[in-house]
Amino acid sequence: MSGYERFVRRVVPYTPGEQPQIKDKIKLNTNENPYPPSPKVEQALKQMEMDSMRMYPDPAASDLVEAIADYYHVKPSQVFVGVGSDDVLAMSFLTFFNSDKPIIFPDITYSFYDVWADVFRIPYETKPLTQDFEIDIEDYKTENGGIIFPNPNAPTGAQLPIAGIEEIVAANPDVAVIVDEAYVDFGAESALSLVGKYDNLLVVQTMSKSRSMAGMRIGWAIGNEKMIGYLNDVKYSFNSYTMNRTSIVMGVEAIKDDVYFEQTRKKIIATRERTKEQLRELGFVFPDSKSNFIFASHPKYEAKKLFEALKEKHIFVRYFDKPRIDNYLRITIGTDEEMERLFEFLKNYMR
Amino acid sequence: MSGYERFVRRVVPYTPGEQPQIKDKIKLNTNENPYPPSPKVEQALKQMEMDSMRMYPDPAASDLVEAIADYYHVKPSQVFVGVGSDDVLAMSFLTFFNSDKPIIFPDITYSFYDVWADVFRIPYETKPLTQDFEIDIEDYKTENGGIIFPNPNAPTGAQLPIAGIEEIVAANPDVAVIVDEAYVDFGAESALSLVGKYDNLLVVQTMSKSRSMAGMRIGWAIGNEKMIGYLNDVKYSFNSYTMNRTSIVMGVEAIKDDVYFEQTRKKIIATRERTKEQLRELGFVFPDSKSNFIFASHPKYEAKKLFEALKEKHIFVRYFDKPRIDNYLRITIGTDEEMERLFEFLKNYMR
Repeated sequence: MSGYERFVRRVVPYTPGEQPQIKDKIKLNTNENPYPPSPKVEQALKQMEMDSMRMYPDPAASDLVEAIADYYHVKPSQVFVGVGSDDVLAMSFLTFFNSDKPIIFPDITYSFYDVWADVFRIPYETKPLTQDFEIDIEDYKTENGGIIFPNPNAPTGAQLPIAGIEEIVAANPDVAVIVDEAYVDFGAESALSLVGKYDNLLVVQTMSKSRSMAGMRIGWAIGNEKMIGYLNDVKYSFNSYTMNRTSIVMGVEAIKDDVYFEQTRKKIIATRERTKEQLRELGFVFPDSKSNFIFASHPKYEAKKLFEALKEKHIFVRYFDKPRIDNYLRITIGTDEEMERLFEFLKNYMR
Repeated sequence: MSGYERFVRRVVPYTPGEQPQIKDKIKLNTNENPYPPSPKVEQALKQMEMDSMRMYPDPAASDLVEAIADYYHVKPSQVFVGVGSDDVLAMSFLTFFNSDKPIIFPDITYSFYDVWADVFRIPYETKPLTQDFEIDIEDYKTENGGIIFPNPNAPTGAQLPIAGIEEIVAANPDVAVIVDEAYVDFGAESALSLVGKYDNLLVVQTMSKSRSMAGMRIGWAIGNEKMIGYLNDVKYSFNSYTMNRTSIVMGVEAIKDDVYFEQTRKKIIATRERTKEQLRELGFVFPDSKSNFIFASHPKYEAKKLFEALKEKHIFVRYFDKPRIDNYLRITIGTDEEMERLFEFLKNYMR
């Protein structure tokens, strides 16, 4: 081992879902939106003035921050933006989770939380979901250094009702509570309504799913002005200009085109509800999903084998080889046609 | 103070240069390129297929990594990319500077180094430049936890010859040595030629200056495969997808258009050399710059007052209110016309 290697931060990184390069495929493995972004996003991109590229972008990304603030009826000083909600969450861990006590999150959840805790050397404890994959609120009333959970949860898709979220936030006034709402636009109730009431609540959202912009990496946090100020201080101690010019321009249009947003998310919700019926008919069981995916298990068919068989036919879903969930598949909601092809395959497979 | 605030990471953030929103201005304050990016960058952007935006970008940004590797004749596994060289440097601090001993860098240098050290709680020591603003190599032969310096240095523009860099790298086999080459394309000698010889050397570059792409935030590190592997592990523990789809597509074209790159950087070098002559005629003194800026002082005119007077006429340069350099102005090289307007002003001011 070379000398310098003794001082390397050793980590076990997060593994993102596969991005297969095959042309003819059905990609239901990374919770992307099956529909393209608003046509106004394309217009804005194609009209971009190229000379400006030589200049640094606005470090505060003010146009984007203001568009988000307008949309959610908060002050621009309550909005923090980043390179996808992953960047926003990483910055939030670094900013708010500096206690000696462990932060807490569910045992089954977004698998990046323990990775961030590890890279920043933050102690953590996981709290087991109930047998029905629900968060037990009492678990979040113990002493801790901070709390984070997704709502709806991933990869289960299950929602914690707003009253439960408020109970957790209210019980923990002395730590930051982060609600990761990556999937909230598909039918769950947002905790944004609580931001005015609690100064320790941070709500994190993204354009990757409901606004079809995973390729552009745009996420944000909304919270009390003071919290956002702390986040910005850390961001400006890391990278002054995180949002490039194309992200700012495209992000503004994506958030402004509310009509398109409502259309696509309603289409996905409708497809999800039909998918639930069809999966049920085939004998699958799953928590009731309020997200753009369904976390399904079949009492007779092994998930891992099914995952492999689907993959062979170029139908990609996500499988997690982890305790408690190793017999589940996370299936992203695609177009009706894509889901139809999935069902055809499943019917054949189970015949 | 609210309870959660006790656990907030308190930092004093980096202050980026002003981005004035005035239309008619001469902007010589943030070392941007006065020429637009290659026309091929625009073409590629305008031809982007919008449906792909709904999907995550390639987490490895392979197209961009390969284009950079091709250009510099290294293996793709020796290239790490990030959201500007600031992101690359932040990740490098986090990855390699984990010793209890202080890292070292010059007292007059890029003012983000101490900010990164502070945010990650890395001990550091600065080594004074000589009176002529040169790095004293002997200073970098003491025990340390890592070394970083820019070449050419910022904001001085002075170059450390390659033999000096090699002496520092060779004297420090047990720590990572980072050479920050943000401005190297304007005439300094790159340390890339040493990467094959030393496994602890990391060379960091950017598209922001010489490739006119500050607005897109694209930077990279080149080093030993193992170093790049460690960097990637930390990056994948922070944000899987840092480079968005537009960055990857535009970055590839910017690096491939070598003809345009050579043209613009030669134009800037020529303007810089003329600028040196004219500044000298006006009585300014400055270290010999190998960058796209000149760090100039005048024995008779106070830098701060000159800075304010220029600003009033919408000519923006950079002034640092810091020990040893508080009578200097950092003047970015613009077009010949822009520099002409600067000289006109200076001649009048000094009449």
